[in-house]
Amino acid sequence: MIKVFGHLNPDTDTTCSAIAFAWYLTNAKQLSATPYVLGDLNKETAYVLEKFGHIAPATLSEVTADDSVVLVDTNNPEELLPSFAEAKLLEIVDHHKLVGGISTPEPVTITMRTVACTTTIIWQLAKEANLTLPNDIAGLMLAAIISDTLKFTSPTTTDVDKAAAQALAEISGVNVDELADGMFAAKSDLTGMAPADLLTMDSKVFTLGGKQIRVSSLETTKPANALAMQTELVTAMADMKASSGLDAVFFFVVDIIASSATLIVASDFEREVAEKSFEKTVTNGLMELPGVVSRKKQIIPALEKALS
Amino acid sequence: MIKVFGHLNPDTDTTCSAIAFAWYLTNAKQLSATPYVLGDLNKETAYVLEKFGHIAPATLSEVTADDSVVLVDTNNPEELLPSFAEAKLLEIVDHHKLVGGISTPEPVTITMRTVACTTTIIWQLAKEANLTLPNDIAGLMLAAIISDTLKFTSPTTTDVDKAAAQALAEISGVNVDELADGMFAAKSDLTGMAPADLLTMDSKVFTLGGKQIRVSSLETTKPANALAMQTELVTAMADMKASSGLDAVFFFVVDIIASSATLIVASDFEREVAEKSFEKTVTNGLMELPGVVSRKKQIIPALEKALS
Repeated sequence: MIKVFGHLNPDTDTTCSAIAFAWYLTNAKQLSATPYVLGDLNKETAYVLEKFGHIAPATLSEVTADDSVVLVDTNNPEELLPSFAEAKLLEIVDHHKLVGGISTPEPVTITMRTVACTTTIIWQLAKEANLTLPNDIAGLMLAAIISDTLKFTSPTTTDVDKAAAQALAEISGVNVDELADGMFAAKSDLTGMAPADLLTMDSKVFTLGGKQIRVSSLETTKPANALAMQTELVTAMADMKASSGLDAVFFFVVDIIASSATLIVASDFEREVAEKSFEKTVTNGLMELPGVVSRKKQIIPALEKALS
Repeated sequence: MIKVFGHLNPDTDTTCSAIAFAWYLTNAKQLSATPYVLGDLNKETAYVLEKFGHIAPATLSEVTADDSVVLVDTNNPEELLPSFAEAKLLEIVDHHKLVGGISTPEPVTITMRTVACTTTIIWQLAKEANLTLPNDIAGLMLAAIISDTLKFTSPTTTDVDKAAAQALAEISGVNVDELADGMFAAKSDLTGMAPADLLTMDSKVFTLGGKQIRVSSLETTKPANALAMQTELVTAMADMKASSGLDAVFFFVVDIIASSATLIVASDFEREVAEKSFEKTVTNGLMELPGVVSRKKQIIPALEKALS
């Protein structure tokens, strides 16, 4: 049985891609494949699974040399379980930059395309294989596209993502605006979340210019709720750096409706890097970034340039 | 203008893939793309280009930061120009194991599939894009499949390669057996070739178990011609190691008709590694390997296992 999974800190794209691609492998290739996630689901993803009546994938905490695995939505070993290299990798489907950290002893199948969402690629692969997607899988795939494109407002959005979303909306019979409203309300609900939870919920660790950096974002329709926690968040970022050996933690509160971000500055080092990256100044520990919504397309390239 | 090229020591697959994929990018994506090679063409490839009336791609000796490039038939920086990392990489189409040595600052398109030949993947992509291949391009793509599969006898051959070859033979109106006979006769002609030429003609450098190793093969219908040069080849291998810092050079004479290989042993080190890899003994400096024809599927995995 093949284990299909995405990155740590699973989001809607990684989770729905694992489900959809396990379905694809089963139906297009007649393989036995099961989706997994590498951690707790966030509120948006839990909402989406509930909405389409799909059970949550089981959580995987280790893989061994006996496991055959397929990666979706990442090609970065730093975003995977430490035991990942033990397993036999069969395939990767992804839309991120090529990290170059994975090698294989035998040829493998890799499909990386420059679209906003991994499920857009899976939609293309299903079409190429003449497969008819079930309603619930199509709904999950649509939700992933809405999530990754912030309902088509992110600069990562391509015409292919839009075409995929339209086709998937027709198959699943879902109203895109209603689905997006429900998803964004779910992800904006911070009830019961500690500052440290917010820092790791939608978060990736990168090595940039020799520094270990965590870049976290919170996409929300209600930025005020997160900004009200500024003091606690700054303390949590300092604690995280002290305990994990990270050089920096960047936390961006992304206002989905206004299409803008606010960086909550953790310390002088992050302030210096951010000022160099975005050519903006910091006021009261915050940097306002109108138009910035995409970690992949806007934030990481800017940080990378400043740190290299 | 996009520069499309494959690996150093260009063979028929790398050369024909560069031509075919430049055609694909031009016709499927409306991009301006030109094929290149990274060195002199071997006799088989020259025969194939002549046969289908196609001019040889220009040779590229350097790329710069101003170049946008697409890689075919390799994902290994050790098989590329030293300046490769300067260029802006847009896309990779390949069928080899994932080496993991390339990273990109932005997402890129990657299509790696577990088939015997890169042009098989390009045939699939052209089909997915509903493109009609011109006769000469189809002929070149067919020749690449015949070359990489040794006319469907290599264990790397898949049903997809066979289906691609059949479709390409129909489009190009070519008799597969006649084309293969001409190609194999061309590649078996060693006239005017020095021992050192034979060592680099179809050759790749790998890092295995921390050792720099060149693995060369000569696919031929007339193995006796190469085996008669054993003494000169052993001298040339010693010279090559002394001048290039390689730890080992393996030279396999592959008998295409008998589907077997003979390893010409360069020194005690290669003998020890080969005996461990293939569990055979060396007689008179030669190791007979019945059934061994594929570097990718048979030779490299065996060497890798012995050296790791």
